[in-house]
Amino acid sequence: MLLHLSTWQEVESYLQQSQGIILPIGSTEQHGPTGLIGTDAICAEAIARGVGEATQAIVAPTINVGMALHHTAFPGTMSLRPSTMIQVIREYITCLAKAGFTKFYFINGHGGNIATLKAAFSETYAHLEDLQLANAHKVQCQLANWFMCSSVYQLAKELYGNQEGSHATPSEVALTQYVYPESIKQAPLSSSVGSGRKIYSAADFRQHYPDGRMGSNPALATPEHGKQFYELAVKELSNDYLEFLNEV
Amino acid sequence: MLLHLSTWQEVESYLQQSQGIILPIGSTEQHGPTGLIGTDAICAEAIARGVGEATQAIVAPTINVGMALHHTAFPGTMSLRPSTMIQVIREYITCLAKAGFTKFYFINGHGGNIATLKAAFSETYAHLEDLQLANAHKVQCQLANWFMCSSVYQLAKELYGNQEGSHATPSEVALTQYVYPESIKQAPLSSSVGSGRKIYSAADFRQHYPDGRMGSNPALATPEHGKQFYELAVKELSNDYLEFLNEV
Amino acid sequence: MLLHLSTWQEVESYLQQSQGIILPIGSTEQHGPTGLIGTDAICAEAIARGVGEATQAIVAPTINVGMALHHTAFPGTMSLRPSTMIQVIREYITCLAKAGFTKFYFINGHGGNIATLKAAFSETYAHLEDLQLANAHKVQCQLANWFMCSSVYQLAKELYGNQEGSHATPSEVALTQYVYPESIKQAPLSSSVGSGRKIYSAADFRQHYPDGRMGSNPALATPEHGKQFYELAVKELSNDYLEFLNEV
Amino acid sequence: MLLHLSTWQEVESYLQQSQGIILPIGSTEQHGPTGLIGTDAICAEAIARGVGEATQAIVAPTINVGMALHHTAFPGTMSLRPSTMIQVIREYITCLAKAGFTKFYFINGHGGNIATLKAAFSETYAHLEDLQLANAHKVQCQLANWFMCSSVYQLAKELYGNQEGSHATPSEVALTQYVYPESIKQAPLSSSVGSGRKIYSAADFRQHYPDGRMGSNPALATPEHGKQFYELAVKELSNDYLEFLNEV
Amino acid sequence: MLLHLSTWQEVESYLQQSQGIILPIGSTEQHGPTGLIGTDAICAEAIARGVGEATQAIVAPTINVGMALHHTAFPGTMSLRPSTMIQVIREYITCLAKAGFTKFYFINGHGGNIATLKAAFSETYAHLEDLQLANAHKVQCQLANWFMCSSVYQLAKELYGNQEGSHATPSEVALTQYVYPESIKQAPLSSSVGSGRKIYSAADFRQHYPDGRMGSNPALATPEHGKQFYELAVKELSNDYLEFLNEV
Amino acid sequence: MLLHLSTWQEVESYLQQSQGIILPIGSTEQHGPTGLIGTDAICAEAIARGVGEATQAIVAPTINVGMALHHTAFPGTMSLRPSTMIQVIREYITCLAKAGFTKFYFINGHGGNIATLKAAFSETYAHLEDLQLANAHKVQCQLANWFMCSSVYQLAKELYGNQEGSHATPSEVALTQYVYPESIKQAPLSSSVGSGRKIYSAADFRQHYPDGRMGSNPALATPEHGKQFYELAVKELSNDYLEFLNEV
Repeated sequence: MLLHLSTWQEVESYLQQSQGIILPIGSTEQHGPTGLIGTDAICAEAIARGVGEATQAIVAPTINVGMALHHTAFPGTMSLRPSTMIQVIREYITCLAKAGFTKFYFINGHGGNIATLKAAFSETYAHLEDLQLANAHKVQCQLANWFMCSSVYQLAKELYGNQEGSHATPSEVALTQYVYPESIKQAPLSSSVGSGRKIYSAADFRQHYPDGRMGSNPALATPEHGKQFYELAVKELSNDYLEFLNEV
Repeated sequence: MLLHLSTWQEVESYLQQSQGIILPIGSTEQHGPTGLIGTDAICAEAIARGVGEATQAIVAPTINVGMALHHTAFPGTMSLRPSTMIQVIREYITCLAKAGFTKFYFINGHGGNIATLKAAFSETYAHLEDLQLANAHKVQCQLANWFMCSSVYQLAKELYGNQEGSHATPSEVALTQYVYPESIKQAPLSSSVGSGRKIYSAADFRQHYPDGRMGSNPALATPEHGKQFYELAVKELSNDYLEFLNEV
Repeated sequence: MLLHLSTWQEVESYLQQSQGIILPIGSTEQHGPTGLIGTDAICAEAIARGVGEATQAIVAPTINVGMALHHTAFPGTMSLRPSTMIQVIREYITCLAKAGFTKFYFINGHGGNIATLKAAFSETYAHLEDLQLANAHKVQCQLANWFMCSSVYQLAKELYGNQEGSHATPSEVALTQYVYPESIKQAPLSSSVGSGRKIYSAADFRQHYPDGRMGSNPALATPEHGKQFYELAVKELSNDYLEFLNEV
Repeated sequence: MLLHLSTWQEVESYLQQSQGIILPIGSTEQHGPTGLIGTDAICAEAIARGVGEATQAIVAPTINVGMALHHTAFPGTMSLRPSTMIQVIREYITCLAKAGFTKFYFINGHGGNIATLKAAFSETYAHLEDLQLANAHKVQCQLANWFMCSSVYQLAKELYGNQEGSHATPSEVALTQYVYPESIKQAPLSSSVGSGRKIYSAADFRQHYPDGRMGSNPALATPEHGKQFYELAVKELSNDYLEFLNEV
Repeated sequence: MLLHLSTWQEVESYLQQSQGIILPIGSTEQHGPTGLIGTDAICAEAIARGVGEATQAIVAPTINVGMALHHTAFPGTMSLRPSTMIQVIREYITCLAKAGFTKFYFINGHGGNIATLKAAFSETYAHLEDLQLANAHKVQCQLANWFMCSSVYQLAKELYGNQEGSHATPSEVALTQYVYPESIKQAPLSSSVGSGRKIYSAADFRQHYPDGRMGSNPALATPEHGKQFYELAVKELSNDYLEFLNEV
Repeated sequence: MLLHLSTWQEVESYLQQSQGIILPIGSTEQHGPTGLIGTDAICAEAIARGVGEATQAIVAPTINVGMALHHTAFPGTMSLRPSTMIQVIREYITCLAKAGFTKFYFINGHGGNIATLKAAFSETYAHLEDLQLANAHKVQCQLANWFMCSSVYQLAKELYGNQEGSHATPSEVALTQYVYPESIKQAPLSSSVGSGRKIYSAADFRQHYPDGRMGSNPALATPEHGKQFYELAVKELSNDYLEFLNEV
């Protein structure tokens, strides 16, 4: 059940059955010469909808733009500052909590969002308490990074070994190829690729990762791989979501 | 050309040709018993993509959540506060302006966004000047509300007369039916419908517009109408966008 | 009754009779070679006091500085950023609402304030609800732009035709001449005047409107015209205010 | 020379001669049973205009609302929070500094503004440096509290002894009587009046100062006293302003 | 009793006896060629602990970094902007007030903190009221500047006359020598030292006070003096704190 | 070399040799019935000073209060909201970066700080770029959690097995016992202790971890263990810091 394709009365009925909601969150950022700028949002959205179908959960609109400041030296990247993103997440959750939702399950496609999301959860719990919201103490947020699913991680290791890298990875590229087969990109990839550098400023990032990849070889990706990743992630996160719902 | 389905190198090439970008913006809010919660985002996104195709313009990811505080007494509505939305818009534009974009064309599907968007443009111009961005003085933002296109307005009047109303209108519902025919909703609509009340707080809104409609009869909507609205809006806004690009 | 010339005990008594308050809001910004920098505040204040007398309403101190970022390339202009102005308006209303006021009638003299004021109203309604203020649901804000009164608009058209323009207009200059006849300015006005350009950054504004006027010929203004505008606006807005008070 | 009664070209000329500007700042707050809510703004404005005339300085519009949170338990009081007021002051100065002003002389009528104004000055200096404004290092703000002028203080002591008190004082009431003789108020004043309590929350303030006065007997005020206070303050602050201008 | 060396259960017990807490606040800023960067925090902390012992009060961790923007042109200085410091103080007090503390006694070692602290107290009172905290109306904050104790002031005058100056003073240097005798610094001090200049921007400060001192001769300081200052301040502030506790 | 015990001229000299600085950061929060409220700050400070000595690095004053919102239902806890803490960290780094520091090494004693610190680093890199600071691109922040050192982790496992738990752990308690042997606390510890619950709101935390411990048995701690942990952490982090300095 997709929130944006529902009516408010359908949401009202849903809330009689469940107080859980899935929020896909990605990023709009460079993903190397062949990766789509929307990769993280595309993956998060596809998997979130899969989990939503498998678990009868409602799925919120995808948060397309996340915390990608370190990618902003590449054209096409859009980012929020962490403090703004905290505010945004806080306001999303507050609206939904006022309506009765208490279980917020974020399916995340971007490593750069993790810290800010966790900070946002803390800020939000305190905010809801300040508002004296009746169900404030019941509100729980959980962060599920699809790319950290153990099944996903293991398949990526089998398929790509250390060519998986850590940004513009073949696994995420594969998943976008599965979702948008008409948008598979070809571009020359130099055999040498930056790796091992920690992440500092946007300028520093571009200097050390000049084509945007971090140790990855996305040329290994195929849509068939993508399908496998998709199915593994949906299965693992569906179980995880149901456990989350059951937690008192 | 869709930003999220492009690579950063494609964006780099695009910027050699054009500095224009289209940003669809909608809302996630109740639209009466039969209107989709995502109506405003769905309409803005569909039209923006149509305009993008017609004009070879790049289209950014849709801003799904806007300023809908007055709808928050209905479950499913999500909203930013105006001051947060200003911050978000400012950061989106700043990222893109740093990359070289100067012409920001917002295709908007929600009346409630208008004031905040205009405020955000003012705030952003001043911010870019403060940053001493080289192309700050060239940055131009334009707001295009598809539902205010004269061709759209005229057709709505012909088809629905004063049953068009001003929220959960048959014209916008029709457009979503055209885009998502599988999500056409049926629900009883009382023949009496609130109208004429100005917009104040969320509680006041729900009291005076108990089913969420403002003077509208969305039962008149058909997917065929939706197609007509879509085509009129795309045509009119494509011309408008090209004129905007040509403005020095 | 002017708030700043009243005692708190008089305000307490007033609140037994009425919960309405009129807030004049202007701007401190260039108005062309012959227009006063305080034009918008002067007009709003004079009319607000006239309406206050006609309707026995209390009138708050004039908000002298508004949203005039686009005029800041001319010396003497002062402006708030929209997000700051939202905060200011929110705090003004909150103070007064805590004291018992519920009907906030803003008489505005500056087009550039409109978007930010509307955004501020939305932000404020939500804030008052968050504070769980007892009368939060009764608070209503209304925006009355004196220069958009139909009677004013019609007279301006009759007197000046398209030389009314849209900034540093003869109608507003006339009104300031009526209020401050000792401050009527003389300066050469070039016969060619910028017009038709949309408003972007401050630098862009000054480039396209080099003397600050937007399509206007303020040389047509006279104090006698000003008196007529004043009287029309006071009459029309007094009726409007009383209707607003009567709205439940 | 009053900024709001000047044109931008007159300001441009003025800046050739002087980079100083006087900003009157008051408050909108209860002043006991007989004191005007606008007392602090009225006094600051009158004296600022007097100083402006005496020194040929330009005078900005009066900042009517200041930091009066501790008075908000009395109806009619309006206040900014300190952090908002810092933002407002910062934006006012920044606009004017960009135009070329460097000497900001605040004539203040309200003790409650002092701390926040000083904080705002510090914040603004750092902000202008961050903006890399060419004249950032020349910008100087000075705070002049008229009621702390030694000549004023001495006269108040002579006329009223310890019945001067510290809020709703006969000296400030006298000054408003001089400026607005038609608004002299009569109301019973209990002979016992709160005093000596430090200032904490608004509720605490009202509890300990139930009629709003702090140790004062404003019944002693006369318009003639007001004239004396006005003249002393204008004289002393005019000298002070000129010294400030001369400081390199 | 030091908060950081206590357990939460000890704090719970303490709150049965007293609702008072002492918060030392200093700064991290240049103190001339021989003064320690931590001077203000060191002094505040030492005295606060002395007062805590004398009065059985709990002492919070020292706020090491305050408002020192005007010292930031010297390396080693760290500062918050006033608006950030207000937020920090507000959050500290709010946490403690929720736990039951109502009497907040700030022992301050830095003149530059005074304005911002006072502003923060006002902001906090209003915030606690907005939160509808049960004990909001009982919360009282008091600012105690050890260097303004009359006994301290008098001793400094006796020992140093006008060589006490107003920054990097021998009295505060002496106190740090008493606390950290192993960190007594030697450096040439020019006999001429800047004085009398008001405080504006950081650049202006460094230009007029090139070695960081303001009219002071810290070479006069001795650890024995420091002991005397310490004892006087502890005695005077202990009495002051107890009076504060007794105020209803 | 401790920043607070240095003069600005010593810092100036230091910057000729090194641009690195160590910033200890802890928290002020409950640590169970026997853990000190300052545990995290005490550990971070002690280890940071040890690393500073071993590597000749300058050590900034300890950040005593961090992100501990989830502990605020226990008295004595103090916390910043994440968005405030981001602002604080940003301002600390900005001051120091303007003075010439580029390598910021945070030695952290509190798991709850991690997310917010990482978010703060991202925000700060972007801020420094916006300020156009000359050395913005060289600024690097690194987060070192002493309790995650592999040598520390291994010893804790050997000594305590799964009684190490995850809050109020014997390892951190041991370290505080080593630093403050006079503050070793005794209190009854129930043999059953909460564990496994994720962290949500403060109320939820206290309900599931009623005495504040998370799966730990701090009764196992001894000062001798603490010495071992201290030495291991200092050694491992000293190497890590030197590597960080060497990274270009």
